[in-house]
Amino acid sequence: MTLAPQALRDLVRGIFERQRMSEAHAALTADVLVWADLRGMGSHGVMRVPRYVDFIRKGDLNVRPSIRRSHDAPGCVLLDADRAAGPIAMMEGTRAACEKAKSAGIGLALVKSTTHTAALGYYTQTAARDGFAAIALAASSPLMAYHGARTAGVSTNPLAIAFPAGDHPPYLLDMSTSTVALGKVMASSMISMGALAQARRSGQSLPEGVVLTAQGEPTVDAKTASIPLPLGGPKGSGLGFMAECLASLLTANPILAESLEQTPASKRHRQNGLVIAIDVARFVAPEMFRAQVARLTRGLRELPGDEILMPGERGSRRAAQQRDAVSIPDSVYDELKTL
Amino acid sequence: MTLAPQALRDLVRGIFERQRMSEAHAALTADVLVWADLRGMGSHGVMRVPRYVDFIRKGDLNVRPSIRRSHDAPGCVLLDADRAAGPIAMMEGTRAACEKAKSAGIGLALVKSTTHTAALGYYTQTAARDGFAAIALAASSPLMAYHGARTAGVSTNPLAIAFPAGDHPPYLLDMSTSTVALGKVMASSMISMGALAQARRSGQSLPEGVVLTAQGEPTVDAKTASIPLPLGGPKGSGLGFMAECLASLLTANPILAESLEQTPASKRHRQNGLVIAIDVARFVAPEMFRAQVARLTRGLRELPGDEILMPGERGSRRAAQQRDAVSIPDSVYDELKTL
Repeated sequence: MTLAPQALRDLVRGIFERQRMSEAHAALTADVLVWADLRGMGSHGVMRVPRYVDFIRKGDLNVRPSIRRSHDAPGCVLLDADRAAGPIAMMEGTRAACEKAKSAGIGLALVKSTTHTAALGYYTQTAARDGFAAIALAASSPLMAYHGARTAGVSTNPLAIAFPAGDHPPYLLDMSTSTVALGKVMASSMISMGALAQARRSGQSLPEGVVLTAQGEPTVDAKTASIPLPLGGPKGSGLGFMAECLASLLTANPILAESLEQTPASKRHRQNGLVIAIDVARFVAPEMFRAQVARLTRGLRELPGDEILMPGERGSRRAAQQRDAVSIPDSVYDELKTL
Repeated sequence: MTLAPQALRDLVRGIFERQRMSEAHAALTADVLVWADLRGMGSHGVMRVPRYVDFIRKGDLNVRPSIRRSHDAPGCVLLDADRAAGPIAMMEGTRAACEKAKSAGIGLALVKSTTHTAALGYYTQTAARDGFAAIALAASSPLMAYHGARTAGVSTNPLAIAFPAGDHPPYLLDMSTSTVALGKVMASSMISMGALAQARRSGQSLPEGVVLTAQGEPTVDAKTASIPLPLGGPKGSGLGFMAECLASLLTANPILAESLEQTPASKRHRQNGLVIAIDVARFVAPEMFRAQVARLTRGLRELPGDEILMPGERGSRRAAQQRDAVSIPDSVYDELKTL
């Protein structure tokens, strides 16, 4: 199914408005989800809408949040997101981090108690368009094996870093901490929903060393694949561990420990996040900066090899191609129409 | 060769003092290098001393640096390290980042124009012992293939994240962005010096997909191995790219572009670095924090699996074992005695 991006945004906005979200919040949530579809990251796109609606119905996602600020200091703030939709909470965090960075040089926004953060790259890219280098990460429940363990212990925490690139779209690294090969197959932190399900249906086999069965045995069979292994073993699970420390322990809203102990609180969906912004213009004059960015890009592009892309370039190209018509699966479109 | 850590520190300090380093700087540089040996990271330990002395002789490492602060703001500062030894520059950066974080909540120190940063974990661990969560990274010359390229385009930039752990040594993730398997074999960002050289001598074969020959062809033969591939393809090289943007473009001291263009400046050894510190106590009360850290650790340790270690725990254990007697290769000891 192919439709105009604005038509898709309007459709999704309408769904969230019907769920009593304000027009502004519904429009922002729709924009973040459609952004992922435009960039070819369908797993983080509008296919999540039914799940968001489930969260709303269960009371896990609050459509009328009162986001409270605390721990205000020259460079930092903590936002208690009151179970807001990820896009609402994370964009407020992004704005707060940039505002702090404007005066302090660097700004940190800790975002406590949000829901699915959606595509983390959206927030860092927004900051980078405004001239900030930005780092964002999210903490969620155990999905990936902790290194050495046979069951899920940490999240496939996404990490995004964006950097302004002068006249070009910002450079954007938006990655999970699970094995890359599985990331390609699955591209989703929701195992049951992503392309892994497709691989399961098609019987496609997976590379070795990327996934375990539910019983903790290595497998290459997508049908029995259940638990992604961390990228680089202790590196990937270490990054996941640190994301929990930074986003969940600093906000006093632990997610992993609650899940591992199977507490009642762990049964409800929630996430935490973090945005760091650095004011680039404070350190380098814009024209100097633009020239150096162009020089670095040129140097890398001229390396011998296959197609050499800058971080985020594949997604930007895809978004440019889909500017007038974005593709989503028919089944997703049907679900959206029903909602 | 086994000797008391303090004897090794004194030996190394003496070498640097003889090179006209101040006693305090020589002692700190020795401490950082011996720290790596104690933790079992010999590739970043005292085996680097001859290389440091070379840097001094060539004028690339300044033993009497005037480190200048600029771009001071409530949350940030830029240190021009004046070609100081990495340990001197990075520890001053760490102190500056922590001091900024104490008043602003988060602190950023950009460290321009240093030399080999040594084990990045030392700096973040020091910050974490003082109650700060810390992130550090380093930018250096091209050593690792950029994703899609057949030659080196980015550095195997190390990234370190440390988090206070109550009464235990801080959690510490200290990783390169190259493929893990090669990392294990090589454990070094100086290809010609590390364990890769050992693998070459012994004819040991390497895992597939971790390294290219100097001609850009994949190989499993340590003898022809030359260019490590990035961890997770575009993820690893994207992290390397972002490290250059953050540490080198923000300090207006580009390293990759200069090297790729083979400018005269690129013939001289230099690095840049960055330290971010976050004041944990500003967000969470110490007793609450200690309890949550213990809870997370307990939850992960109880997962079914093999030996489950927290980030940095292997190194801390090794350091405890070697508290009274640290092992270094005989050849390294002989070189140190000669110097």
